[in-house]
This record gives sequence, structure tokens and C-alpha cells, in this order.
Amino acid sequence: MEEGLLFVISGPSGAGKGTVCKRILEELDIDLSVSMTTRKPREGEVHGVSYYFVSQDEFRERIEADGFFEYAQVYDNFYGTPKQMVMEQLAKGRDVLLEIDTQGALNVKAAYPDGVAIFLLPPSLPELRRRLTGRGTETPEAVERRLSETRKEISCMKEYDYCVVNDDLEEAVDRVVSIIKAEHSRVSRGVQDLMKRYEEEV
Amino acid sequence: MEEGLLFVISGPSGAGKGTVCKRILEELDIDLSVSMTTRKPREGEVHGVSYYFVSQDEFRERIEADGFFEYAQVYDNFYGTPKQMVMEQLAKGRDVLLEIDTQGALNVKAAYPDGVAIFLLPPSLPELRRRLTGRGTETPEAVERRLSETRKEISCMKEYDYCVVNDDLEEAVDRVVSIIKAEHSRVSRGVQDLMKRYEEEV
Repeated sequence: MEEGLLFVISGPSGAGKGTVCKRILEELDIDLSVSMTTRKPREGEVHGVSYYFVSQDEFRERIEADGFFEYAQVYDNFYGTPKQMVMEQLAKGRDVLLEIDTQGALNVKAAYPDGVAIFLLPPSLPELRRRLTGRGTETPEAVERRLSETRKEISCMKEYDYCVVNDDLEEAVDRVVSIIKAEHSRVSRGVQDLMKRYEEEV
Repeated sequence: MEEGLLFVISGPSGAGKGTVCKRILEELDIDLSVSMTTRKPREGEVHGVSYYFVSQDEFRERIEADGFFEYAQVYDNFYGTPKQMVMEQLAKGRDVLLEIDTQGALNVKAAYPDGVAIFLLPPSLPELRRRLTGRGTETPEAVERRLSETRKEISCMKEYDYCVVNDDLEEAVDRVVSIIKAEHSRVSRGVQDLMKRYEEEV
């Protein structure tokens, strides 16, 4: 059986990662990787769907056991991408989609080089400023800080396999869907099985 | 302006190259590369559409001037893929589709490594035997000769970038369309311009 592929969707805050991933899940038969965290569930959040909610001890044990592709501490809480669930899905031949910030994406790519890293870009910095300002949740200073952060993140774009500009949402989704389909046809992804099949046939 | 990409569709006789290419031209805004030949036009063939029909002298001059990605002599006639038209279209930002036999495809890939080589496979050798027999144009011996040729061609599959099994036509077309779209998003295809754009923005 063909192994599944891991697709890592990342990019600056405001690029539209969440919206694109939601549409990908509607378009393709692919599993979403669920993160693990030590923070308490908020109202409406479901264990195993929003996050895997675990204790600090459980999280630390998993770190010790090399159980994460990547993890980070944000204030008092840990967040991480557990290896086991992803590897089990891939072994079953299921594709897995992972939405993650840019630091996390590069760590995942380093830990699992077969993963396909897709960088989602906002159409332009002025447009990103409009989007961030439009949310109304951040001060102008915070918006400018995010923009300068974005420039830094964009300078890491060459570490990724693909780059998709999220100008028009449906066009961006179509691009990502194409990437997922195309990667399954890459000869570098084990054409040996296929060749063997034809060698054995009469 | 972004340069166009060259997509080379190849594979064994009976894989369905022609049908897939015809459908791709309907689905995408892409130009078909037209071959050059010294053979006489057959009824209904149009210069510049079916082939560029040229004299032996003209063909030889072009060989001397390194004007072909690849060419071959079949009995008394020459057939080749002229560079100039393809390069002009690519420079204009147009994608170019080239349908060619497996020997020609590897020569094109050697001459133009940026080209994307797609190997189209028949679903199986027994199915290929049925297709070739079904045409009714070849003796059983000729069919077996083609099948043994096909095995040899398949052993060169690893020289290609992608491999698509033409089991269901529309699925195969969808795969090739995805490959063409995805290649335009590859970071290795010059993300510099994009990064520069963001660096210059305020």
C-alpha cells in the first residue's frame, strides 16, 4: 500500500492558513493533524478535535520520549505536534494536513524531511496590514510589529517546497489541492513499486 | 514577468498520450509544441499545426545550427522538436506542452533540464495488449514486440519527474493538470522575485 504524505501549511499570521485548511478538508480526503496542549480547554473545544488536552506531566513525558515533531512553550503552556498520530495515519496510507506557524513548520520539516512544506503568503504587505487592522483586535503598534515579523518569515520561504499567494481564496485552495495531487505522482516518491508491478506482468 | 514552463508528456505507445494532451489543451491555457518534419504533408495536415513541413536542406541547416532539442531519422525522413518556437513561447510567459516518444523525451530533458517530464503509463501490460490488439492495425507478433519495448521504456521511468497512470482518462487529465499548476508554485522555480516584491513593500 502507498504510504500517505504529510502536508505542512504555514505562513505569516493573516495569510489565511485556517480558512485554506478548512476548504482543503472539504475538497480532499485528508486528515487534519491535531495538536497537543497543556492549556485548559475553552468552552466548546473538544478533546481530540480542537486539541489533545493533556497534563504538564504527560506533555513532559512525551518530550522525553521524543514524541513530538516540534513543540513550543508559550507562557505557562506547552503546544506541540505529536508524532505518533501522524505516523499512524501515514502508515495507513492516509494523507495528513498540518497547519502550523512558520517556526513550527521548519522544525517539522527538519524532523520529517519527506513532509511537503507549503508557504501561504498574503497577497501583499499593505493588504496584510488591512487584514490585521480590520480584525480590530490589535493596536497599530502590534500590527506594525506583526508586519516586521512577516518580512522575517518571508525571508525563510526558500526552506519550503511550495509557495502559494492567497490573493483569491478559491484560487489558493485550487493551488494547494493541485500540489497535494501532484506530489502523489512524483517519481521521486517511490516509483519502484509501480515498476515492479509492470515487470511482473505478462 | 514569470517565464513559462515546458511540460513534456511521454510514455509507451498505447498509453494515451495524444488523448490526454488534447484534453489538457481544452482545460488549460497552454501552447502545444509543433514538431518539424521533412516528410510530405498528408491530406488534411496543416503547416504549423500538424507539423512544420520543411525541406531536407532546411532541416539539415537547423541541425547544424543546434536548432533542435532532439531529432530523429525514421527511414528517409527527419522529425524534430525545434528549439526556437518553444523558447520564444516560454520567454513570453507561455507554458508549452510537448508530446513525444520516450527516447525523444529523455533527449529534451537532457537539453532543457528545467523541463518537467511526465511519464504516462497504461494501467497494466495486459490492458495495453488489449488496447494495441483492439486497434486492429498490428499483427500479434508486432503487439508482443511493442509490449517488450514498453517494459524497456518503463525501466527509464525514474528519469522522469512525474508518473501518471492512465487508467481513467479524466483522472489522468486531472493529475496532469494538477502537476502543471503545482509546478508553478514550486519554491525552487525562482521565489526570488516574489521575495523581492515583499521586501520592497512598506
